[in-house]
Amino acid sequence: MNLLTRTCAAVPPLDQAAAAAVQRRLDAKTKPRGSLGRLEALACSLGAIQATDAPDVASKAVVVLAADHGVAEEGVSAYPQEVTAQMVANCAAGGAGISVLARHAGARLVIADLGVKAPLPGVPGVRDLRVGPGTRNLARGPAMTREEAVRCLEAGIGLALELAGEGIQVIALGEVGIGNTTSASALVAACTGLAPEAVTGRGTGLDDVGLQRKVEVIRRALHVNRPSPEDPLGTLAALGGFEIAGLAGVVLGAASRRIPVVMDGLIASAAALAAVRLAPLAAGCLVPSHCSVEAGHAAILRELEKPPLFDLGLRLGEGTGAALALHLLEAAVRLLREMATFADAGVSDSGR
Amino acid sequence: MNLLTRTCAAVPPLDQAAAAAVQRRLDAKTKPRGSLGRLEALACSLGAIQATDAPDVASKAVVVLAADHGVAEEGVSAYPQEVTAQMVANCAAGGAGISVLARHAGARLVIADLGVKAPLPGVPGVRDLRVGPGTRNLARGPAMTREEAVRCLEAGIGLALELAGEGIQVIALGEVGIGNTTSASALVAACTGLAPEAVTGRGTGLDDVGLQRKVEVIRRALHVNRPSPEDPLGTLAALGGFEIAGLAGVVLGAASRRIPVVMDGLIASAAALAAVRLAPLAAGCLVPSHCSVEAGHAAILRELEKPPLFDLGLRLGEGTGAALALHLLEAAVRLLREMATFADAGVSDSGR
Repeated sequence: MNLLTRTCAAVPPLDQAAAAAVQRRLDAKTKPRGSLGRLEALACSLGAIQATDAPDVASKAVVVLAADHGVAEEGVSAYPQEVTAQMVANCAAGGAGISVLARHAGARLVIADLGVKAPLPGVPGVRDLRVGPGTRNLARGPAMTREEAVRCLEAGIGLALELAGEGIQVIALGEVGIGNTTSASALVAACTGLAPEAVTGRGTGLDDVGLQRKVEVIRRALHVNRPSPEDPLGTLAALGGFEIAGLAGVVLGAASRRIPVVMDGLIASAAALAAVRLAPLAAGCLVPSHCSVEAGHAAILRELEKPPLFDLGLRLGEGTGAALALHLLEAAVRLLREMATFADAGVSDSGR
Repeated sequence: MNLLTRTCAAVPPLDQAAAAAVQRRLDAKTKPRGSLGRLEALACSLGAIQATDAPDVASKAVVVLAADHGVAEEGVSAYPQEVTAQMVANCAAGGAGISVLARHAGARLVIADLGVKAPLPGVPGVRDLRVGPGTRNLARGPAMTREEAVRCLEAGIGLALELAGEGIQVIALGEVGIGNTTSASALVAACTGLAPEAVTGRGTGLDDVGLQRKVEVIRRALHVNRPSPEDPLGTLAALGGFEIAGLAGVVLGAASRRIPVVMDGLIASAAALAAVRLAPLAAGCLVPSHCSVEAGHAAILRELEKPPLFDLGLRLGEGTGAALALHLLEAAVRLLREMATFADAGVSDSGR
């Protein structure tokens, strides 16, 4: 049995008893019951994922996977393709948005090259997990072979298992890849049955003509590849990107080790959805962060029944929204761990 | 000229040139223009408040003011009045929600007693700014005299000026006071002209009968006190609480020193609105945080034209939502300060 099959089979269900135990602990804290709103639900979710009434997310990682996309040749991005490699270098050098927000979150930033067009040998801090020099153009046929998809998934699984072994307690998903909103929107359309125009946005900043072209490209991709809901691996291979398949692997690996995974925007969330199609129980480990401007993102969050924690109109990707959410996850956990109970603090309860 | 009058007169307008300079700096960063959404607007606001293209909020304080409310005798809270003093002690001991979230934000927690019913001599870490043993019942007449309101306002101003002198760069507002959602809702109704039932919520957890009683109490308070929009000080005295007037003073003091003030939920925001009625330019320094469950809170945020940054269904007060927002303010500032530009990082711009 290969690593992918083994990992999918190893994803455990949520521990609902742990979630209930977290809620009981929260109800004894010096506050009106339920008054911490979604932070209470978040603490319960983290307890259910980690199977404990004392979840912990102090040790945090942001995993940013990068790759290029053959579909970029269709003119679906406002930026030229070489920006992928440049932005990977920028991430590693500490100057990208995610570099700043990972530092701000106190999270380790793990960057890996799953298949940027030009290799990045000279950039320290970028792991080489290359599957090839970018995908093929998904508007003309499958973006990758099934074997390539499995290699990406297993690279992501390996990364997650390694981080688990190092004591990482929560993983935020991020990505860099010019053209990857096209790939992600195509995947969302295929996985949800929604029309391309309902799940396609302006990415890094397309104008109306560019947006229309992007929708047409996705329509062609669906027509050419005919993805089937019964074949999630084939769908991911046909429409995904190396970094998207890699992130799906990170989700599966993390889920198999009871590690919560924070989704970012459209691309990271499309990867999460692809992972859930491969192993439905993996949905349990997914924690939403923001709702991005990209139309397809809200569609994924609805499909996964994971309403976003906040909406700041972000559309940068890279894991920036997920990194911001880490503060909220940690807040939920710290409130659970550090607040006094009515009994401890000698505070009169309302008796309810 | 007394401290209150002097401070109101000293509130400067926003520096719009600084805001524009911040936006220009953001536009040069390695990201699609505008892709950081509200974080960009937040950075611009902070620049406008601090009158610089390099705003800084690394040095943070959460100011929690506490007092008791005569209106508690009307049975408007799910908790007994002694809980105010107990919760102040809990805050100071580090076990309250705000204690945890101030630590999590890396903010200094400043707690002051503006008039808890029973004095708190034995609690270290609580400043004595007592104006009296709680307000009078606002349903039967003014909650305090105009002189008491001025004393509270000036206590808050003094606190803000002291923090400014110590280098604090942003202040989050918090409060503790059984009965204070009734006072705050009455203030909101008086300041906005909205009907009591439109701005009144369940506070710490009233049932339907309790909520109806609370609305009736507020209606009586407005009838008995007849607050006038032309007399903001009289309105605050009639319907406010010592801690609410104190927080209004903190807003005025901070605004006079160009220090951003993060509003919390209903009560802190009602205090902010009262401050704006005394000195309209003080609105410039106000930064929203969350939208609480309390109906009156959304009304204030609409009135101040400060849409919330997030909505997590919080209804704890104490400054918990404001403390959580500090992470976002700091994120906005750090992105501005630490992200590389296209030129620095050698990344190709889209040419837009």
